[in-house]
Amino acid sequence: MREDLVKEGEKILLWGGPDANFLTEYRVGKAVHSHRGILYLPKELRWGEGLVSSTGRVFYVIRPSNADFILRLKRKTNIFYPKDIGLVLLYTNFSPFSRVIEVGSGSGAMTVFLSNLLVPPGKLFSYDNNPEHQKTAKENLKNFGKPENVIFRLRDVYVCGFVERDVDIVIVDVPEPWKVVPHAYKSLKDGGFLVFASPNIEQVKETREVMAKLGFVAMKTVEILMREWQIRDVGCRPEHEMRGHTLFYSFGRKTKTPKDAT
Amino acid sequence: MREDLVKEGEKILLWGGPDANFLTEYRVGKAVHSHRGILYLPKELRWGEGLVSSTGRVFYVIRPSNADFILRLKRKTNIFYPKDIGLVLLYTNFSPFSRVIEVGSGSGAMTVFLSNLLVPPGKLFSYDNNPEHQKTAKENLKNFGKPENVIFRLRDVYVCGFVERDVDIVIVDVPEPWKVVPHAYKSLKDGGFLVFASPNIEQVKETREVMAKLGFVAMKTVEILMREWQIRDVGCRPEHEMRGHTLFYSFGRKTKTPKDAT
Amino acid sequence: MREDLVKEGEKILLWGGPDANFLTEYRVGKAVHSHRGILYLPKELRWGEGLVSSTGRVFYVIRPSNADFILRLKRKTNIFYPKDIGLVLLYTNFSPFSRVIEVGSGSGAMTVFLSNLLVPPGKLFSYDNNPEHQKTAKENLKNFGKPENVIFRLRDVYVCGFVERDVDIVIVDVPEPWKVVPHAYKSLKDGGFLVFASPNIEQVKETREVMAKLGFVAMKTVEILMREWQIRDVGCRPEHEMRGHTLFYSFGRKTKTPKDAT
Amino acid sequence: MREDLVKEGEKILLWGGPDANFLTEYRVGKAVHSHRGILYLPKELRWGEGLVSSTGRVFYVIRPSNADFILRLKRKTNIFYPKDIGLVLLYTNFSPFSRVIEVGSGSGAMTVFLSNLLVPPGKLFSYDNNPEHQKTAKENLKNFGKPENVIFRLRDVYVCGFVERDVDIVIVDVPEPWKVVPHAYKSLKDGGFLVFASPNIEQVKETREVMAKLGFVAMKTVEILMREWQIRDVGCRPEHEMRGHTLFYSFGRKTKTPKDAT
Repeated sequence: MREDLVKEGEKILLWGGPDANFLTEYRVGKAVHSHRGILYLPKELRWGEGLVSSTGRVFYVIRPSNADFILRLKRKTNIFYPKDIGLVLLYTNFSPFSRVIEVGSGSGAMTVFLSNLLVPPGKLFSYDNNPEHQKTAKENLKNFGKPENVIFRLRDVYVCGFVERDVDIVIVDVPEPWKVVPHAYKSLKDGGFLVFASPNIEQVKETREVMAKLGFVAMKTVEILMREWQIRDVGCRPEHEMRGHTLFYSFGRKTKTPKDAT
Repeated sequence: MREDLVKEGEKILLWGGPDANFLTEYRVGKAVHSHRGILYLPKELRWGEGLVSSTGRVFYVIRPSNADFILRLKRKTNIFYPKDIGLVLLYTNFSPFSRVIEVGSGSGAMTVFLSNLLVPPGKLFSYDNNPEHQKTAKENLKNFGKPENVIFRLRDVYVCGFVERDVDIVIVDVPEPWKVVPHAYKSLKDGGFLVFASPNIEQVKETREVMAKLGFVAMKTVEILMREWQIRDVGCRPEHEMRGHTLFYSFGRKTKTPKDAT
Repeated sequence: MREDLVKEGEKILLWGGPDANFLTEYRVGKAVHSHRGILYLPKELRWGEGLVSSTGRVFYVIRPSNADFILRLKRKTNIFYPKDIGLVLLYTNFSPFSRVIEVGSGSGAMTVFLSNLLVPPGKLFSYDNNPEHQKTAKENLKNFGKPENVIFRLRDVYVCGFVERDVDIVIVDVPEPWKVVPHAYKSLKDGGFLVFASPNIEQVKETREVMAKLGFVAMKTVEILMREWQIRDVGCRPEHEMRGHTLFYSFGRKTKTPKDAT
Repeated sequence: MREDLVKEGEKILLWGGPDANFLTEYRVGKAVHSHRGILYLPKELRWGEGLVSSTGRVFYVIRPSNADFILRLKRKTNIFYPKDIGLVLLYTNFSPFSRVIEVGSGSGAMTVFLSNLLVPPGKLFSYDNNPEHQKTAKENLKNFGKPENVIFRLRDVYVCGFVERDVDIVIVDVPEPWKVVPHAYKSLKDGGFLVFASPNIEQVKETREVMAKLGFVAMKTVEILMREWQIRDVGCRPEHEMRGHTLFYSFGRKTKTPKDAT
């Protein structure tokens, strides 16, 4: 069985401990430099094997998780956190065949993650009005995701809205989400899902007011706290370090009866 | 465009507000009874439209989310919470084509969710030693998931282990996860992911000790707190009700060098 | 040594387990009725001893904590939670000799607690505009606190403000705290502390804006989550039940240079 | 009225904003140096007034809170956090006249705080076996607390226990709290309170087992998360920075019937 060989060009995580782990692409003979010495990637590389660096540290060759990709993206913007991305899948009807819009592309964290879960005819349409951001998102997608499942559009969505109609889900992560809501309403299937992410509670309130008027229902706003634990012989305790806040996530579903009309 | 018509047999969520919403299957003429009166489902039903019950309450016809399915499963056991399920996708390399083992099937929450994200040759192998539980999981899968992506196995995993080899991910939710670890090790691809869920910190510690000896690395244990917010004209505040604990989630990746051997 | 005898009229906690514990006043011969049977309080009662009820349940005679008092107050309003009250002591310069104003008296939770920490000339001035609430607060104070350290005033503080000057701390728990801020400013010593408690974030924002204009500095807003743990042989885990929100607590200190004047 | 003058030797907080605030003692003519320039303290200093530093930054003269003292102690050890200290007051029957034992003195955070809440005959007995720690605690107490309310004892409590009897509360913050429990039992009044603080869950479990055998009841273990909020015109949101864990706090009350004896 040869299946456990790493293929040329595959992404590997070199794990030398919590303080020394590197995500890289496998190339025969490639030198990986770090504060733990140099590693030369051998001609045949097996998943799970241990390599020894020039300073004697063992590095294991393991498979990167989806979170590893997200946390190591090249960044121009804030990124979605792994703890939060899962919510988007659970509180919508996401499936591999969904047609999804996201705005903005940002650094491509959501783009990369969703591209890896989509299968044609599933598709992600990724909008941004900042060419620099979208360039970064494209690079990250090429490195860590499946570009064939994504169509990028450079466009001022506040003004011009979206091209697509009958999409299943619209994911909004922009400073003024309320400006996108009417455009999202037009693009969504009836009964479809709008998700938006905002750091401040005022943005949540204003956006939900606009959503309510247009006829979105089943609205819900949540925040997530994730805490890591130290599990050791000498004792188990929560980590001292913890992220106190990332974003508030809000959800709603489109109905055909705008509230103003009733 | 006829695409916004609900098809016979499709699942719909009838939304009459946070205190009155029902997940049901569309059948022409079906009567839906509740404390908010009776609704008769009409011959042509459109996504997003509002139906009026016998007591005058409007119910909107919206698409169920993945969380709606999970929270309404018929239950024989505790179930995974939506806030937690997302972690499993993020902290592994899950893709639609993954080969995944879960034990136990439980009430089928994870089974339903993963089945909806898989595409052949992706497959879920769902083990349980309790025929009653697995019967419930099968029913729930038939109602809310994609049975074609799941193979159920009735088996005492503590003793007999798993049939499959070279799987990408093993998800463990049993009272004594440490007994499953050696079996998971055999079934996993090199570099592959073991995930286990435990309510108590002692279970986490004991299981991670067994994992460390076998050669799992990059271990991580986390817990998630999710808080809903009330967003209203009169003021925004967190909900008073909140779940203080569900499960601790732990992750590790298989290497080829068991620690005992070094 | 007779010191361990409970004195007639002292408050005792009868502890028969987490599901059966009662706060009462010791009277010789008193019958205490509960779902765990009847207890007759004997002629000589010792702290820490076990009494057996008519149904055979053992009840231990233990000293009530400050939290026991607060959680068992007769209530007409929401009350302060023990987890929150500690903040008020820590983020002010409270001492036994402080002169403190509170508004409103509410059901007297803060009143009872502070009265027990004050020593003359320390004093609490407790304002409310609702005679019913203040009557309840007075009863609770008489039962659980030190009435000699408290002066009640029935008064519409929004309109009439406070009588006292040169107080150390003003604690505000009313629906429109911003209306109390100018009155608090007048009553506080220079450099003194204003604390207010609000359920909604909009109240916090509006009140802090008024405070900033008047010249309060060192402002700080916090929220507290408290989680209980189950510690048992079979395993340790957080409780499932948890309070998701009580109140936001905000703090500021008076300076002599109103911001508008600079 | 001259009462708003700062007295020679009083502690003041010089507040130049969240990034520039200093706790110091008032001495006429004293120069306070910082990255915001030099401040000379004038002959007459009034609470609440604004002083201008050599770089033009305004510093307000405000009263330090109890938390300001605690967070600025000279440290040799971990210290109690303000969020946690309040719990000790609420979940015991602490009053200004309580007789309290603490072990260890540590850097004196609890020592300073309690000394400021005690009034004779109330007394704190502060034990430590490390002369260096206790020296630091003494210095901090002299600077920020009331030394007249505290008696220090240098002693190995694991081996020798406590001198006092009939105390109201014993507060334990040592690495092996279970070794102190039998000594605490002897020193406590019947019905009195034992509190212990531990970072790891194993310490909690082991100590509570020893307590249960000796006859402590009404046991409770809690943890506290405190989150600060940014309240600004541009939007309100939780702070990104947050402490994920400090200590678990556990409480119990002494009864006269050791469980082993029944």
